[in-house]
Order: sequence, then structure tokens, then C-alpha cells
Amino acid sequence: MRVAIVGAGALGLYYGALLQRAGTEVRFLLRRDYDAVMKGGLRVFSTAGDFHLERIAGYRTPAEIGPVDLVLVGLKTFANDRYAELINPLVGERTLILTLQNGIGNEEALAALFGAERILGGVAYLCSNRGEPGTVHHLGKGRVLIGTLVPSLAERAEQVAALFRAAGVDCTAVADLRKARWEKLVWNIPFNGICTVTLKPVDALLGSPSGRELVREVMLEVIEAANAQGLSEPIPRDYADRMIAFSDGMGPYRPSMQIDREEGRRLELDALVARPLAAGRQHEVPMPRVGMLLALLELVEPS
Amino acid sequence: MRVAIVGAGALGLYYGALLQRAGTEVRFLLRRDYDAVMKGGLRVFSTAGDFHLERIAGYRTPAEIGPVDLVLVGLKTFANDRYAELINPLVGERTLILTLQNGIGNEEALAALFGAERILGGVAYLCSNRGEPGTVHHLGKGRVLIGTLVPSLAERAEQVAALFRAAGVDCTAVADLRKARWEKLVWNIPFNGICTVTLKPVDALLGSPSGRELVREVMLEVIEAANAQGLSEPIPRDYADRMIAFSDGMGPYRPSMQIDREEGRRLELDALVARPLAAGRQHEVPMPRVGMLLALLELVEPS
Repeated sequence: MRVAIVGAGALGLYYGALLQRAGTEVRFLLRRDYDAVMKGGLRVFSTAGDFHLERIAGYRTPAEIGPVDLVLVGLKTFANDRYAELINPLVGERTLILTLQNGIGNEEALAALFGAERILGGVAYLCSNRGEPGTVHHLGKGRVLIGTLVPSLAERAEQVAALFRAAGVDCTAVADLRKARWEKLVWNIPFNGICTVTLKPVDALLGSPSGRELVREVMLEVIEAANAQGLSEPIPRDYADRMIAFSDGMGPYRPSMQIDREEGRRLELDALVARPLAAGRQHEVPMPRVGMLLALLELVEPS
Repeated sequence: MRVAIVGAGALGLYYGALLQRAGTEVRFLLRRDYDAVMKGGLRVFSTAGDFHLERIAGYRTPAEIGPVDLVLVGLKTFANDRYAELINPLVGERTLILTLQNGIGNEEALAALFGAERILGGVAYLCSNRGEPGTVHHLGKGRVLIGTLVPSLAERAEQVAALFRAAGVDCTAVADLRKARWEKLVWNIPFNGICTVTLKPVDALLGSPSGRELVREVMLEVIEAANAQGLSEPIPRDYADRMIAFSDGMGPYRPSMQIDREEGRRLELDALVARPLAAGRQHEVPMPRVGMLLALLELVEPS
């Protein structure tokens, strides 16, 4: 099994490192970290134990990597217009493409380019940040849910889930990928959104009574929008409370979008907020707070 | 006629300077600007023409000022717990107290301390900022609407309005002070709120299509809350569009609350946002965006 990592940010580096440590051949497409990784390998600082991979197969272009069995996509979604350029050279007849990106619409965009019968979607519950070049910080969690757009791919999704499990990741194949995506949005939209607008970490939001209530209200809007999409079963309203309880253990965690803003990068507004909002509005779900969050995020997005 | 200025920020300094220039005896209670003003007087840089008052009657304590005919209150509303301490020494038998502060609840708080029969409320549409000590910048506008809590005070309100007009201020006495206050909130809540959360000036909000729409949606929530209060006549919905058109001429104006945040001060959340929100909710007006704005402002308020 040969795996290529496209979009080697915190998520791509972390899962790539775990797969390699477990014996899988992993090829990393690198930009920022290339020099550091080729010189000193990749260091993972993890709540589950630090480790160091001395030799990393790093590449500057996808053509040098060539066709692989599995492409793991961790790109920022605002770079999705580079899918074809970055992934085409990696695709052979049996290649699977697994996007672990945030938000909705990514599998569909990949399917339009490469065909739905090779696209897997993975929903990652991971707290990780990039560190200095050549390092990645894993702050906790890491569960991955893997699903497909077409039922015929279910068996291969299960094989990929097994590959992740063999690497130590809590990974399950799920029947309803869209439901898994929307469940993640229940977390992502309030926390990425509000943390990014206020530049306050997760525990600051949850420590303020009105901040905590706002998180819950935004979650309920997302749950309503999700349930208007015709999922296999509805997401219950108390899912919001469970996600808040889950987040109480995160401490001063800064979601990826907050870090993107702090470091002057573009924000993943389209996949994470605008598309879910449009999907809800299409079914006439009122989403005043999510709409307001998007407007505020557009105002603060680095230009 | 002897006037005392309590809360000599941008607004207090500006109107005090205009009154003095027109021949009224004005006594300023000063803190930050005391040394500069006593040494070099007060300079007003104004779109209507700069001027310089060489001699200013500045005081460090209200006891030194003593009783006056009119107290003009320009305090930040989060300092309203100092009303008694700062205003008591200025009040004689016939003294009027005019609050030009932002938001709602200020006249009522003054009335509880000094009696409603001496309280005037002034709604100021003024773009001004403090400059270096001893200077104030008037960026435009300046209209004042003056009203009362009790009808018996109408004639004296008209006299004060005439005093302001004689000083060159576009000033009118109005029958429904509450309506004038709520009309100002239609501007204040979206612009103070959103500019403060995003740290973007007025023209940035209005230059973003979604920002402009958000301003309008927040305005409509405030208009609905206002109209639930039983005003003399309702505020029409197109008042929102007129206020947006009015604001298009403001350029990169930073509302006072944004400056408060940027300079690390507390925010006027209670008078400007929390009380209007509570007043709307009391009448079951849904105000999701104003509620969200308050939660976000609480998160970013300097501690």
C-alpha cells in the first residue's frame, strides 16, 4: 500500500506520520516543511507520546510522487481549485482519494474531477497544530469516520479504515457520510466561527455564560439545517449539549480557522460556513446566527 | 446661565466649547485633559472650522465647580455608578441635568437620584473623537434632540435647545424622548457593535455586501424592539435604509465603542446593547442578531 499526502499541514503530517510509523509507505508532498523534513525528519509532539521519523519521503511536485494506492487530501479548502493539478499525477486505475478536509462539498468536487467511485470522505476529530518546520503538535483526539458517496465503495472504505486502525487511529467506516460531515459542522461552525471573529480560544467561549449560550444556539441552527438535508436519521438537539461537554475538555484550543486568521491566511469560509448556510436556506431553515457569523468572518478575513 | 460639563470626553469637550464660544459660562470637570487645558486652552479641529479657546474654566472636583444652572453629562455609561458623587455638588434648586450619553436607562437612573422634574435627555448625532490632551476632533454632524421624562419640563427643554442653537448646534426639542433614543439605537447597535467586534470602521462594513446586509438586519431587529415599547408613533422599517444612506457619507469613521476597545477601555454594553435587548425581549421581540452581538462584545471586552 502506497499513500500520498497532499496538503501536509497539521492534519496531513500527523496522519501521514502515524501511517508511516505503522509500516505503510507514505510519500509527502511538501512545501513549507520540505527543507526541514529532508534534513531532520518529522517530529510529532503528541499527548499520546512523542515520536520522531528520521527518514521521510518528501517531494516538491506530485509528478515526482507518481501514482499511489491512496491519496490523502489535507489541503485548505480554499485551495480546492488546485485539486486537478495536485492530484492528477497521483491517480492510477485503482487509486482511492480520501479527503480529510473540513466542511462540505469536497467529495463532490473531487468526484466531478476523478469519478465518485474512487472518492472517500473522512471526518477527522483532531486537535493538532503545525509547529516549527519539521514538527507537528498533536494536542488530543484523532478519531476518523470514513464514508463514501456511492455504496459500491463501502468495502474499500472499510479497508482504509482498517489501515488507519492498524496505525493506532480510532477509525470507523460509516454508512452515512453526509451525516458524519454535518455532525462535524455542528462543532466546526460555532467554534471555528466565533473563535476566529473574537480571536479567543475554545475555553474563553465556554467560560462566558453568553458565549456558551451562543455556541449552543449556533449548533442548534446547524442541526436544523442538517436535518433538512434528508439524512439517514436526524441529529438530535441534545447533540449540541454533548458537543459542548466534549469541548469543555479542550482548554485554550485554537481552531484551525483562528490560526489561519492570526497568521494572515485566507479562511475556509466556503466549505465550512457558506455552503452549509446555503444548504440550510435551500430548505428554508432560518439561520440568522450562522448568516451573521459568515458576514463577520468576511469582514475580518485577511486580504 | 452657568453650565458644568461632567464627562469631558469628545462629546463633552465639543459641546462645552461651542457653548463657551457663544458666550455661555462653562465649567469643565477635567481629568485627563486638565493640565493641557489649563496651560494651553482647548483646541477644536472641526469640519465646520477650527477654533481655539484660550481660557477654559477647568476643575478637578465637582465641589470646586459648585451649583450651576445646567449640568451637561457626557460620561461613559459604565461610569454611571458615579452619578451621585460627581453631580450632587453641582445641583441647586433650579438646576437642570442634561444627559447626552448613549443608550437607554440614563435619564431614569438620573431621575432616581435627582428627581424626574430636572432631567433632560439629549440624543446627539455627533462624529467626534478626542485628540491629544487639550484637543478635540469634530469629524462632522452634531445634531441634538432634547426631550424630557415628564411633560411639565417641556418649556425648559425648549430653552436649553435654544441655548444650543445660539451656539450653532442644530438642536430641537422633541415630544417623545424615548422614540429619539430608540432611533439613535438603530444606528448605534449595529455600528458600535459590529465595528467593535471586527475592529473595522463604518465604511468597511458598508463596503461589504454581507456586512451591509447584516447592518440592515440588526437595524430591523432594533426597530421591531423599539416599536414594541409603545412609542408615540412607530419607527418605519425604511428608517433602516435611511440610516444606512446617512452612514455612507461617514467614511472610515470609528464609533466610540470601537475606540474604547482599541484603547483598552471597558465597553458601554449595558446602556447601548444589553438594556435595549432586554426591553425587546420583555415584549417577546426575537432579536437573535443583537443577542449574538452582545455575546461577542462580552467576549472581546478588554478586561
